[in-house]
Amino acid sequence: MEKLKQYINEKGIIINASLLKVDSFMNHQIDPVLMDEIGKEFAEHFKNHNITKIVTIESSGIAPAVFAGLHLNVPVVFARKGTSIILNNDIAQSAVYSYTKEHKYTVTIAKEYLNENDNILFIDDFLANGQSLLAIHKIVTDCNAKIAGAGIVIEKSFQAGVAHAEELGIEVYSLAKIKKLYANKIEFE
Amino acid sequence: MEKLKQYINEKGIIINASLLKVDSFMNHQIDPVLMDEIGKEFAEHFKNHNITKIVTIESSGIAPAVFAGLHLNVPVVFARKGTSIILNNDIAQSAVYSYTKEHKYTVTIAKEYLNENDNILFIDDFLANGQSLLAIHKIVTDCNAKIAGAGIVIEKSFQAGVAHAEELGIEVYSLAKIKKLYANKIEFE
Repeated sequence: MEKLKQYINEKGIIINASLLKVDSFMNHQIDPVLMDEIGKEFAEHFKNHNITKIVTIESSGIAPAVFAGLHLNVPVVFARKGTSIILNNDIAQSAVYSYTKEHKYTVTIAKEYLNENDNILFIDDFLANGQSLLAIHKIVTDCNAKIAGAGIVIEKSFQAGVAHAEELGIEVYSLAKIKKLYANKIEFE
Repeated sequence: MEKLKQYINEKGIIINASLLKVDSFMNHQIDPVLMDEIGKEFAEHFKNHNITKIVTIESSGIAPAVFAGLHLNVPVVFARKGTSIILNNDIAQSAVYSYTKEHKYTVTIAKEYLNENDNILFIDDFLANGQSLLAIHKIVTDCNAKIAGAGIVIEKSFQAGVAHAEELGIEVYSLAKIKKLYANKIEFE
């Protein structure tokens, strides 16, 4: 997606060889026009995959997920980090280690929102080491649903996430694929 | 907003006299079609208020905020709960006490995204005791910006938030106003 690559080039901040900050249009400030185009692009790609529901993880996955959900006309479930007293007790959980934030946390989905008839599109802002994808795969499997594919805004192709998706047989559709982060340049695939 | 009230009546779960759970269409599972209509309604109401930016708090405010942002054609900034290493050091913060979750947390916005030219629309899923509104008011003021109004999906009119907004001179536009929660009935204003 050319417009997204242009945004990444112009507004992305390279923190180090593995970390790219896109706080100005996705991870802290959100550009809703761009997110709507991203959602449309995911919907167009997965329109014949019989998606019944989108699953994402709070918070940065929510914006691309809700626009994809609107264009595919399916509900969006966002996994909660940690548990909340507002959730009921019948839950599916999995641990995620965040390399970016250097800590481990739990993601939780109430089982009533996923079942054996669900064909899930997982949407997330980044695919890096694949920890979120592995956690959502475990949760979806625990709920007897299946994952039809993953829509990723920015893939860091040099990290382990792509290989994890391949092992699990999950089709990944990434709108921007980063091959390498240099000190002052981003190399796309 | 009649459709929203219908959703609340049909899908809302009354936990107790002060707590209403709407996990099936807003706080865990999101109905993107409803959220788009909610965003349109906020945009229509505030279209002549010269809004430059929307501010919300992760996570449940993001969905209504991004649709309002799309329809008003302005960026959305979501305050982060806690700090992340991805944020820079020039930040504005405020403490929030959550009566729902019974704990205190910090909300943070990077100052680069709000300045003295900004006229903010605050959007949130609930207005209850007004703790989030007070925190965002403090942050926006610290950044020398101002709040033009608040767009609230569900107002619990029997709690203190409305009075806090009035004290601060903030216009609140709530799409559903709950006067009282009974054991098996929701009374709207």
